[in-house]
Amino acid sequence: MTKRALISVSNKDGILDFAKELVALGYEILSTGGTKKMLQDNDVPVTAVDEVTKFPEILDGRVKTLNPLIHGGLLGKFDDPSHKVQMEQHGIEPIEIVCVNLYPFVETISKPDVTWDDAIENIDIGGPTMLRSAAKNHQYVTVIVDSNDYAKVLEELKATGATTIETRRKLAAKVFRHTAAYDSYISNYLTEEDFPENLTMTYELKQTLRYGENPHQKAAFYQKRLSSDFSLAYATQLHGKELSYNNIQDGNAALQIVKEFNVPAAVAVKHMNPCGVGTGENIEAAFDKAYEADPTSIFGGIIALNREVDVATAEKLSGIFLEIIIAPSFTDEALEILTKKKNIRLMSINFAQEKQDKFKVVSVEGGLLVQEDDQYGFDNAEIKVVTDREPTEEEWEALKLGWAVVKHVKSNAIVVNDAHMTLGVGAGQMNRVGAAKIALEQAGEKAIGAVLASDAFFPMSDTVETAAAAGIKAIIQPGGSIKDQDSIDKANEFGIAMVFTGVRHFKH
Amino acid sequence: MTKRALISVSNKDGILDFAKELVALGYEILSTGGTKKMLQDNDVPVTAVDEVTKFPEILDGRVKTLNPLIHGGLLGKFDDPSHKVQMEQHGIEPIEIVCVNLYPFVETISKPDVTWDDAIENIDIGGPTMLRSAAKNHQYVTVIVDSNDYAKVLEELKATGATTIETRRKLAAKVFRHTAAYDSYISNYLTEEDFPENLTMTYELKQTLRYGENPHQKAAFYQKRLSSDFSLAYATQLHGKELSYNNIQDGNAALQIVKEFNVPAAVAVKHMNPCGVGTGENIEAAFDKAYEADPTSIFGGIIALNREVDVATAEKLSGIFLEIIIAPSFTDEALEILTKKKNIRLMSINFAQEKQDKFKVVSVEGGLLVQEDDQYGFDNAEIKVVTDREPTEEEWEALKLGWAVVKHVKSNAIVVNDAHMTLGVGAGQMNRVGAAKIALEQAGEKAIGAVLASDAFFPMSDTVETAAAAGIKAIIQPGGSIKDQDSIDKANEFGIAMVFTGVRHFKH
Repeated sequence: MTKRALISVSNKDGILDFAKELVALGYEILSTGGTKKMLQDNDVPVTAVDEVTKFPEILDGRVKTLNPLIHGGLLGKFDDPSHKVQMEQHGIEPIEIVCVNLYPFVETISKPDVTWDDAIENIDIGGPTMLRSAAKNHQYVTVIVDSNDYAKVLEELKATGATTIETRRKLAAKVFRHTAAYDSYISNYLTEEDFPENLTMTYELKQTLRYGENPHQKAAFYQKRLSSDFSLAYATQLHGKELSYNNIQDGNAALQIVKEFNVPAAVAVKHMNPCGVGTGENIEAAFDKAYEADPTSIFGGIIALNREVDVATAEKLSGIFLEIIIAPSFTDEALEILTKKKNIRLMSINFAQEKQDKFKVVSVEGGLLVQEDDQYGFDNAEIKVVTDREPTEEEWEALKLGWAVVKHVKSNAIVVNDAHMTLGVGAGQMNRVGAAKIALEQAGEKAIGAVLASDAFFPMSDTVETAAAAGIKAIIQPGGSIKDQDSIDKANEFGIAMVFTGVRHFKH
Repeated sequence: MTKRALISVSNKDGILDFAKELVALGYEILSTGGTKKMLQDNDVPVTAVDEVTKFPEILDGRVKTLNPLIHGGLLGKFDDPSHKVQMEQHGIEPIEIVCVNLYPFVETISKPDVTWDDAIENIDIGGPTMLRSAAKNHQYVTVIVDSNDYAKVLEELKATGATTIETRRKLAAKVFRHTAAYDSYISNYLTEEDFPENLTMTYELKQTLRYGENPHQKAAFYQKRLSSDFSLAYATQLHGKELSYNNIQDGNAALQIVKEFNVPAAVAVKHMNPCGVGTGENIEAAFDKAYEADPTSIFGGIIALNREVDVATAEKLSGIFLEIIIAPSFTDEALEILTKKKNIRLMSINFAQEKQDKFKVVSVEGGLLVQEDDQYGFDNAEIKVVTDREPTEEEWEALKLGWAVVKHVKSNAIVVNDAHMTLGVGAGQMNRVGAAKIALEQAGEKAIGAVLASDAFFPMSDTVETAAAAGIKAIIQPGGSIKDQDSIDKANEFGIAMVFTGVRHFKH
């Protein structure tokens, strides 16, 4: 009996050659719609699906293959005696190979002018059903959803006349990955709730990584479609080795911080915390400040800059050991200088796009935490001066910078800074005054006249006292402690200007 | 014309009443298989699907509803003139309501003795197809996959004779969430690769949270099916307010640490870092040590204990302000004492189960990082004494404890401890000697004779010098720096015993 292959593809890459090879191997091709026409136009003999179903295509193509004469051929166990009898009774012939891909739902909803009706019409019903039937019955049926698999299938057919069960099983798994992803996109498009009862998320493999946070942990980097391209997943790598897991975490952290600034800014990150942040008239001046902020910790760190890297900045960058430099672009001369260093990674990224990913996720054992990104800035805060003294103009500038940075430092977080750079960063401490001490100690003499930013309120007045002793002149913090007045009194006593934002910025 | 409802459910909760109400509203019920029998046995008039399709159920039920006379009724635009003509030509009548749920795939694969054939047979083909057809055509068709929606649909039908488009759209979105989740489970079951080209993950809502890390961020907690129940997602809350986002993160961190110990152990966590870890002969002694480790930072923290909380421990726990206590169980007297505190959360959790979640995920902008959990312990390490002096027996005990804890401290991480408790924890620092200074300063006098653990190698010998000056007698670290010999020489100079593990434990 002639073997049959059903082909119906929206992505026609390679399909003509594949079909011709199947015909040469003795297969009868069943097809429909555009695929059938394309094959016929290229002289491939094709049997129309409606000849098999003895039922015409109806409802503008909504119903073509949803038919027992097709699905019986996909779902029957070809060697089961009772199945064989039933198939014969009803004139159902086995379909050994199914090659189907789906209406381009994601591509459709990606279009800026997509209408609701367009989106709905691009929900494929017949395609997923054929794929799922064939994949369920992979004991007997070879199912192909990805044109990259044509070659492998042909190779096995030519070698032995049949595919192996291992191959069929792998292809079936791929089908369910495909239909799961497809319905995940549809469900996310149709769902209005932030937190529905079922949350299904889908990602595409960008690259497997050499390892995770440590060499004994396997890891991979997946990208999200329909998302922001202000992302390392969508960056262009201009030079250097592949990014590592820790590079991606650190680079992502650096990008979030540098995005806070409209003026030229440079951010150095180590272990996901900023070790130096600088701003300036131009990108070179900004980098100078970021470097000066902590010339020790920047060693082996990663740098993000929000302006094109010019030759002067490149010369300075090339003088230190850095893992990655991320910027919107690099001048040709800058690239020439930096690409001399074999190990540095250079990434260009689209700074023009506004951030879009509203929610972020993180695993906990047995579950997943989902939360909105912390997108509040200085403008969302209800700024209130709570001390006798108002900040000076320069102190205001410094307070804004400190507030933008401290939001991205792991809690408990304290930043000491001036109007153009960080001077000390206290990160990840189990108590607040401990974080302040670390930041102030790092700032040293430079703390005199500087400002201090805290990601959460002061539970006691000890941080103000410690700050005053180091020479801090202004403080920004959320406020909200039952002991706020103690801190305010202390600030007044030392002539410190203190500002409450009303907004906390914990980050873990 | 009589309106029609197609009902085919695996979960029969509430279906009889729903069907009776539909009949009372004038609907003709179409059904098949077990649902049809159950309705008929209860005197509900039912039309068999094969009377509609004029085609028998074949292939052991694999092909029942995959038929144009059904799907034409689901997919036709009831008010489109050409669709109406085609439907009449082919004897297709509209199906206004579809109530379907699916073969219990997840329940099947959850069974410990599930066979491959059982799993495959429980991949539903006809059900998802009907759901997807009806959901695509929700402009006309009401589709119900969740028995909780019967009441709402009946209410609308009774009030106006039809459901609203808003309701139909919400129900359609729910269907695609359901089929996406369904195929995600199937694909994960069939997929052998760790990092396939499409990664689709699905979770079930456990609770929406009041807010995320900060009050201006929306958040929710999702649970993962088929996962470990050594998880806050599967814990029993015995007392207190709902967990917050930060509670879950901190509690999860505490659980991972306490799970490192077989002996009675208590772990206090603040901002995802351990502030006190203690072990002892019994749980009370362990808690004493964890408290003594840092009596300041434990304030407002969360505690995990790996033994039943008894009355003596409960009395001590009730004396301090804690957010959560997590333990395998609490004695009745312990509960009586602790439940007097209105605000404390008490959670019991299954410590018997071995951890199962192999991979953890975290979002970055535009993508997702996936990595294996860091499950390496002391036993996986290739322990090597690199100094002239070997650790004493007590120092070995202390080194093991330090190594178990430092793995869970945010990098760069240094832990100073003795054989029973942490004495100082340096977390989240941008340089290593900075982390050491924080830990040693906290330990103070107690550092004399204690040991020090480092999550990564020493890039220079300065940490050994700093440790020696504080009185540290033994050190455990991965080794692997090009300057290891400098650190070894320094350790020998000060009579410190130093051990290399060969395994790094970065954690961010």
